[in-house]
Amino acid sequence: MVFTKQQLLDFTRNVFSHCGMSESDASLCADVLVSADMRGIDSHGVARLSGYVRLHNSGRANMNPKWSVIHETPSTATIDADNGLGLAIAPKAMEIAIAKAEQVGTGWVAIQHSNHFGIAAYHALQATKHNMIGIAMTNASPLVAPTLSKERMLGTNPICYAFPAGKYNPIVIDMATSTAANGKLEIAQRQHKSIPKGWIKDKDGNDTQDPNALKDGGVLLPLGSGDTQAGHKGFGLSAAVDLFCGVLSGANYGPWVPPFVSFLDPLPNLPGKGIGHFVGAMRVDAFRPVTEFTKHIDQWIERFKKATPIDSNHPVIIPGEPEYLMETERQVNGVELNPMVANDLQQLAQQFQLTL
Amino acid sequence: MVFTKQQLLDFTRNVFSHCGMSESDASLCADVLVSADMRGIDSHGVARLSGYVRLHNSGRANMNPKWSVIHETPSTATIDADNGLGLAIAPKAMEIAIAKAEQVGTGWVAIQHSNHFGIAAYHALQATKHNMIGIAMTNASPLVAPTLSKERMLGTNPICYAFPAGKYNPIVIDMATSTAANGKLEIAQRQHKSIPKGWIKDKDGNDTQDPNALKDGGVLLPLGSGDTQAGHKGFGLSAAVDLFCGVLSGANYGPWVPPFVSFLDPLPNLPGKGIGHFVGAMRVDAFRPVTEFTKHIDQWIERFKKATPIDSNHPVIIPGEPEYLMETERQVNGVELNPMVANDLQQLAQQFQLTL
Repeated sequence: MVFTKQQLLDFTRNVFSHCGMSESDASLCADVLVSADMRGIDSHGVARLSGYVRLHNSGRANMNPKWSVIHETPSTATIDADNGLGLAIAPKAMEIAIAKAEQVGTGWVAIQHSNHFGIAAYHALQATKHNMIGIAMTNASPLVAPTLSKERMLGTNPICYAFPAGKYNPIVIDMATSTAANGKLEIAQRQHKSIPKGWIKDKDGNDTQDPNALKDGGVLLPLGSGDTQAGHKGFGLSAAVDLFCGVLSGANYGPWVPPFVSFLDPLPNLPGKGIGHFVGAMRVDAFRPVTEFTKHIDQWIERFKKATPIDSNHPVIIPGEPEYLMETERQVNGVELNPMVANDLQQLAQQFQLTL
Repeated sequence: MVFTKQQLLDFTRNVFSHCGMSESDASLCADVLVSADMRGIDSHGVARLSGYVRLHNSGRANMNPKWSVIHETPSTATIDADNGLGLAIAPKAMEIAIAKAEQVGTGWVAIQHSNHFGIAAYHALQATKHNMIGIAMTNASPLVAPTLSKERMLGTNPICYAFPAGKYNPIVIDMATSTAANGKLEIAQRQHKSIPKGWIKDKDGNDTQDPNALKDGGVLLPLGSGDTQAGHKGFGLSAAVDLFCGVLSGANYGPWVPPFVSFLDPLPNLPGKGIGHFVGAMRVDAFRPVTEFTKHIDQWIERFKKATPIDSNHPVIIPGEPEYLMETERQVNGVELNPMVANDLQQLAQQFQLTL
């Protein structure tokens, strides 16, 4: 069940090609998807490949979109992704943001009429290669209840900030704005384990530690969880992501964001088009010289690594550090896939007469 | 102990004038400070006036700064605030951001060598008056420990997003990136009450519900609190604010951010100048027509107000709504000051021979 990065890239590219995607888009989407597996974000990697194929098969996503810039200023653009995959359009949107930042200091691109874009960190990290700060966020199908509500109104709406460093890897803050991700609940369900307090409420709005309560109509909680621990702040953050990605772009928002799973239909009377993303690139030297900035980023990292630990065996972890360690390890040892995911890929291999 | 808005504005302006501030800056700083009292953020309003005066008396802040733009592109600027108050420079920085957004779609201004800027919402809301999305953040004196540490390394580092609406008030997400603010702990200390789990750790890194543990060397926890509830996400957010405000601007960052209280000296060998802020303005019509955007913001608000409540007597609260209600109420009934704060103002009145 262990695969090299190249095996996963080749297979994913071939699957997307067989769905009618252009060679360049298939390569790009494979790169985005497999980057998640390499970084240890297994829930967002090839585990989702069959989901994208089902979106294609059900006519819910367009593998050969004619995307276009529908609105533009020197530092901004809005893209209609023509119902393509976010995996394909978000990197192009970030390229536009980077080009605008090169011209006027910063670039910001809102994307409507898209589908899921993989891990936010992939997109934000493109900017750091140009000595820019990268920002990427997306809205997503509703699973999270606002504070005081028991209704699914928001996605896990992730946001990522990536800052280039000097001698270290970029600082990468990539986080769902909910307390827990759905993937962690699925693991607890499979292992028949209870989950920590503050992750979910059941369908009646009661606190519960039963991981099955989510699929039985429950809700995820925003970051901060309950009233006493400032769950309203997580709701606010998630709302901000929804407003940038959904309302500003012209995509859907709140409970209207279309489901990723192809067996659920979108709601009627949608207020926008598809799901939405928002990306930004800020040239560091639009604010201060790059060498000064990266010197201080390095000092920031070094000082935080030395912050007095509670347990001397567990020093502070810099945001993004575990993902770099995982990537280095998987470059050497390959990616061990969960048996269910490997089986999923085998079925795709049969379907498209590919070898895995 | 009840004062009208105008009384508080006049008094605050007079105090700043007596500290040597120009008439226009004194008016501006009074407007920022009193806006906090009007919105019910009592901890950030005139309660802090004597603190600013002490910063002046101790030579820690410059009431008559020669601020300047030290770096600039069409969509960005960096300001050296010349050790002035953030109350005075942040509105000017936001004006520059707005002017840049008018030219190229968005404007972003980093500020170094500043002091505390009051409530972030005041600054972000300036942008909404021009049909722009406003963003404001600041770093602050260290009180918050990163995940796995028991050392004060970050401020409560607030961030604010303000989105203009159509027939409703703007949506305003204004939040410290810690679980609890210091002000809430002070209230619990005065009332000899225990505090909820997840707000602080004691000086040895143990969980505690004793509000006095903070002043005895403890730490505030980042949003999300403990390991099981994703405190590392709050740490990441707080870090992002610190990197934008401190590292990108050339201000201090992390544990080096100078203390607000004048009886504590800044650390030696500071890596930057003063504290830092970061503000941004994004023209809505740089992405889509304003009328379309505000129509959907209104629909977002209406839909979220109707989200199924857990308790039918407590519907969902839109971010910013409680502050508007408070402002409306206090416009009519005035601001009732805490006796300690009123006493503080009386002492300032004596000191400067003013009437309150």
